[in-house]
Amino acid sequence: MIEASTATARLTKGRAMTTVLPHHDGSPLHVSDLAPQLGDVVTVRLRVPAGYGPLAAVRTRSNPDHEPEWTDAAPLGSSDGWEWWEAPVTVRNPRHGYRWVLVHSADCGGDGRVEWLNQTGLHTIETLDAEDFALVASPAPPAWLTDSVMYQVFPDRFARSAQADAHPTPDWAIPADWDDPVDPVVPARSQQFYGGDLGGVIEKLDHLVSLGVNLLYLTPIFPAASNHRYDASSFDRVDPLLGGDEAYVRLIEAAHARGIRVIGDLTSNHSGDRHEWFQAALGHPGAPEEEFYYFTDDANTEYASWLGVPSLPKFNWASQELRDRFIEGPDSVVAKWLKPPYSADGWRIDVANMTGRLGSVDLNAEVRQLLRRTMIEINPDTILLGESTNDAASDLQGDGWHGAMTYPSFTRPVWGWLSEPTHAAYLTYDGREATEPWFFTQPIGGIPRYSARQFVDAVVRFTAGIPWRVRLGNMQPLDTHDTGRFATNAAPGTVPVAAGLMMTLPGLPVIFAGDEFGLVGVDGEASRTPIPWGTESEPEVAERLALYRELVALRHAHPVLSTGGLRWVHVDDESVVFVREAADETLLVLAAKGDADAEIPAGALPGAASAEALVGDATLAVADDGAVLLSADGPAFAVWRLSGVKVPAPEPRSATADEVSRGVVSADETTPAEQVESA
Amino acid sequence: MIEASTATARLTKGRAMTTVLPHHDGSPLHVSDLAPQLGDVVTVRLRVPAGYGPLAAVRTRSNPDHEPEWTDAAPLGSSDGWEWWEAPVTVRNPRHGYRWVLVHSADCGGDGRVEWLNQTGLHTIETLDAEDFALVASPAPPAWLTDSVMYQVFPDRFARSAQADAHPTPDWAIPADWDDPVDPVVPARSQQFYGGDLGGVIEKLDHLVSLGVNLLYLTPIFPAASNHRYDASSFDRVDPLLGGDEAYVRLIEAAHARGIRVIGDLTSNHSGDRHEWFQAALGHPGAPEEEFYYFTDDANTEYASWLGVPSLPKFNWASQELRDRFIEGPDSVVAKWLKPPYSADGWRIDVANMTGRLGSVDLNAEVRQLLRRTMIEINPDTILLGESTNDAASDLQGDGWHGAMTYPSFTRPVWGWLSEPTHAAYLTYDGREATEPWFFTQPIGGIPRYSARQFVDAVVRFTAGIPWRVRLGNMQPLDTHDTGRFATNAAPGTVPVAAGLMMTLPGLPVIFAGDEFGLVGVDGEASRTPIPWGTESEPEVAERLALYRELVALRHAHPVLSTGGLRWVHVDDESVVFVREAADETLLVLAAKGDADAEIPAGALPGAASAEALVGDATLAVADDGAVLLSADGPAFAVWRLSGVKVPAPEPRSATADEVSRGVVSADETTPAEQVESA
Repeated sequence: MIEASTATARLTKGRAMTTVLPHHDGSPLHVSDLAPQLGDVVTVRLRVPAGYGPLAAVRTRSNPDHEPEWTDAAPLGSSDGWEWWEAPVTVRNPRHGYRWVLVHSADCGGDGRVEWLNQTGLHTIETLDAEDFALVASPAPPAWLTDSVMYQVFPDRFARSAQADAHPTPDWAIPADWDDPVDPVVPARSQQFYGGDLGGVIEKLDHLVSLGVNLLYLTPIFPAASNHRYDASSFDRVDPLLGGDEAYVRLIEAAHARGIRVIGDLTSNHSGDRHEWFQAALGHPGAPEEEFYYFTDDANTEYASWLGVPSLPKFNWASQELRDRFIEGPDSVVAKWLKPPYSADGWRIDVANMTGRLGSVDLNAEVRQLLRRTMIEINPDTILLGESTNDAASDLQGDGWHGAMTYPSFTRPVWGWLSEPTHAAYLTYDGREATEPWFFTQPIGGIPRYSARQFVDAVVRFTAGIPWRVRLGNMQPLDTHDTGRFATNAAPGTVPVAAGLMMTLPGLPVIFAGDEFGLVGVDGEASRTPIPWGTESEPEVAERLALYRELVALRHAHPVLSTGGLRWVHVDDESVVFVREAADETLLVLAAKGDADAEIPAGALPGAASAEALVGDATLAVADDGAVLLSADGPAFAVWRLSGVKVPAPEPRSATADEVSRGVVSADETTPAEQVESA
Repeated sequence: MIEASTATARLTKGRAMTTVLPHHDGSPLHVSDLAPQLGDVVTVRLRVPAGYGPLAAVRTRSNPDHEPEWTDAAPLGSSDGWEWWEAPVTVRNPRHGYRWVLVHSADCGGDGRVEWLNQTGLHTIETLDAEDFALVASPAPPAWLTDSVMYQVFPDRFARSAQADAHPTPDWAIPADWDDPVDPVVPARSQQFYGGDLGGVIEKLDHLVSLGVNLLYLTPIFPAASNHRYDASSFDRVDPLLGGDEAYVRLIEAAHARGIRVIGDLTSNHSGDRHEWFQAALGHPGAPEEEFYYFTDDANTEYASWLGVPSLPKFNWASQELRDRFIEGPDSVVAKWLKPPYSADGWRIDVANMTGRLGSVDLNAEVRQLLRRTMIEINPDTILLGESTNDAASDLQGDGWHGAMTYPSFTRPVWGWLSEPTHAAYLTYDGREATEPWFFTQPIGGIPRYSARQFVDAVVRFTAGIPWRVRLGNMQPLDTHDTGRFATNAAPGTVPVAAGLMMTLPGLPVIFAGDEFGLVGVDGEASRTPIPWGTESEPEVAERLALYRELVALRHAHPVLSTGGLRWVHVDDESVVFVREAADETLLVLAAKGDADAEIPAGALPGAASAEALVGDATLAVADDGAVLLSADGPAFAVWRLSGVKVPAPEPRSATADEVSRGVVSADETTPAEQVESA
């Protein structure tokens, strides 16, 4: 009957509004090595506001092989009002979790309390393994992943080259002119065909350059029987309607020449029912390809499929032959498109969350690991992102996906906070009229109404289970080809706030093509509006373009936004304040829906007095007592540059190296059997 | 810097003190089938206090194959101030998570808010998959598991029969008289030998009967070179020092004759270094048994071991031959002791948490599943418990262990709340004097000081990730052979509170032999005091014995304590109030450290006016407005019996059976490919 789970966090939160708290995150300020090998000793650092103690001890608690292991932290010195502690952590497992424990002194005025720090914050009761900070010992993604700003293109709707006119309309298609409205009702829904092609993308690459984006993600380009092409009929060639293989080669070459990388989109959960493999197996018992799918009758006519949709037969990853053809080794589909002459820079995997999962079967980890292994063999300088549109943490432990296309950790919270839906009527796929705003197909009565606090709570909750390194690779869109467009329901003036958060919170910013033109769309179909080329100089479009250019430029100019730490410094119902921190600089970010009036205690923002405003109209003032006052008329998004965070130089100290002897020992060591305690 | 994770839960908690909230748990009142098969439709029920809405909709959200699936709940009617909702959930995966969503009406005075209910309580932001309610489709444990009260015996210290005198003292042992104090310093620590034996256990079975316990758990009985015997030299025979195989047969027969089941203790993580398998492999490259262990040199002299202790070489579960000999099939060790003439009733598995895990290897799930599969083949009427002394949730999803010997979900919280350590000096294993109270080997400055709130928070946190059915099988001791005894540091008068909680919260009560004599012990070694037979009539012992007899009898007399639901109705810093609920009766429980003065709102406790006091000295009064007032001088533990919970009879309604079509479809179904939306 009562909500009893989190009183402890509540208590510390209650303090948080007026107190500076201990901090750790996965960034280089606090972790010596983000790409360790098993067995490596990583140095982790905690900082505690001066006067927070007295602390009797600071320790780390890891859980290698699911058994606790502790190390002592040593004081490292003070800097800018922070006292730093440093401890060694030996990486024992591919995902090595650790947390901090702060033991307050029971003497000298201390109260002897114990505090735990994990990825959800500070706790006075024990914390969960799943929410530990975590090091990842699998191969790291290329560094360019975090330097990227992604631009997502849905080829049928992006741009149409002259060559497209030469192609006949396919049998399944309902031709549309570029200016026609998107028809969300079946059959037009997936058949309405605008004829955008890769030649069109090539022609518009300078637009991408002008935005500053440097990673192009194309939704599927394989031949299919729909405008979205997620029902591939082959993985072996680029759809001729898009210009074929040749156009793909030209596109990637042209993009690379402009410093833009390109990744493709692959369905590992299913193929289309027109796929050559499926057609070879359908109704043909004994065909080699029958084991690629879950046929359930002797005649090979019934089968499992994606959400029961028969045109999307589900792959059975128990098949080694499927693995060989699709994802394993240099001749696989996965490999082919990463190799010359294509040389794509990675994959986004569709329905990664369901891949290999059906009832009692779960081969997901095997598939994602094998996928990445192949990519490393072919070209390790590639990235692998998996679609996992809900709680993605269980699959995001660093063993496969470098990040996820996922919505609960950013996209839905930002919608929840910054939307003000109009309840305008729209048509659903079956022609019914709806007025309840689309919200990620959740039947919860429209878009929930979050405060800024709830926004932060949701971001924290859905990132706490993800190692920092993987979190940095998570796609962080305001919307995608599968969602309505954020702007559709945005409260007046909040697009800059939302886009600003996307560019400044940890994660991979993603612009779904058209957002920079101010497009709207109530749901994932309506959002696939053809790009209104030629409107760039219209005032509203020009303003939106300028916004995105400014924010992308900010992201590129300040690498701290890509890899710096994250520390929340203020949250109230209307506003959020956080810093991204590195040794060379700190960026201070204010995001507010209503008017902002944040008082940040002295000590939380060293150097604020010399802050340099970079973006936005907001006021930063430093009070006599050192408190920092941020104020702005809402909605507001503002960024300031502060000096970087100084980690004190290590003092000479006695070795704290891992004191727990574990693992491999020699049989002739002298440790007497008599010392054995029972396990 | 701020603690930002849980503001939402905090807000609902803030309300909780004065408001009755929606409730669901895994008990039969709310779940139609606790042992479903894959594909079964289970009916789940939510109850909402009258007037809580208006609610526009109540739904469930499952996540089969990691993709959301929703069902609508239908109103079932009202009863005793609750409005009930009912929804179908089709069990798609072996662990099938689900949560509730409550959509408040935006009309009729409602505020349109959305609430989510999961195993941590009520939330206004989305919740984590890991904390969903969960159905388990693997074979259920025998019903007798939840009817059990376990009694744990450490054979060397329990009782010594006349036959024991006949045995020579083994080479490794330091003989001790029964009255000698336990010597915690090496070498005595594991060599001090009191010579308790199975004959002694047989002679004392009537003591178990008089307590009312009905499940005897024996720590290892295989031959070894220590008093604890976790370093087995064979799994093929009972230690002759204990009376050998014959005594084990006699013990189990005698126990069964008294209605007491017996389980053994097996080390799946390691053997002793004197084990016949290890000796066959040590220094013998090429021996068949070398693959049973992790030898790391060509000479088979270096190897991985438990926490680096060389006498406990770690098993390598990649070996099929090890699996065959140890856990797979009717000739395995696991099978042997469950078959006649032994007919043991199950296993507690030592170091289950580390089993099969080493660095990049994790075979734990395979091992635990295989273990249980063998047991089902031999005798499904057996139980399997795994030691997992910290956060056990990741391993407790129902696929192997029926429950865990685990401490963070009950034992440590109850210590944290009810201790008042004296800081008396004691000796550690190496002869150093310590005054910091032992706390589960956590180097956190002794025993943390929890409020009642924190106690509840910890219980909720560490059970939220565990399916209800598995939670019921979790061992719930105050202490074990591996811990200090709770009474050692108990605040005055709190033993009845702690023991009462053990018997009334969901989970398997466990009495570590000697607790009923009031024994103390600062740590897991000192707690292995020989049982002081003959002191039963001393007043303090008699009182403690009476306490345990009363509480065990309470547990047996009220099956609602075994399988009923759990609803917290009040928590403050000093006291906890909850109910265990079933159709036939409800038990109301008050546990308090300090003075209790709990006001429980009207509606939370229907029928309280006719409550029947069962245990304890406390006052229950019902105010004019229906609020229930519970008061007692602390420490206090009290139980009342209320009438059972009435689920309204279902009204005729249109079918809400699973509306989402999924999985297997026929290729010739008419669903047009045109309806396909991209994934």
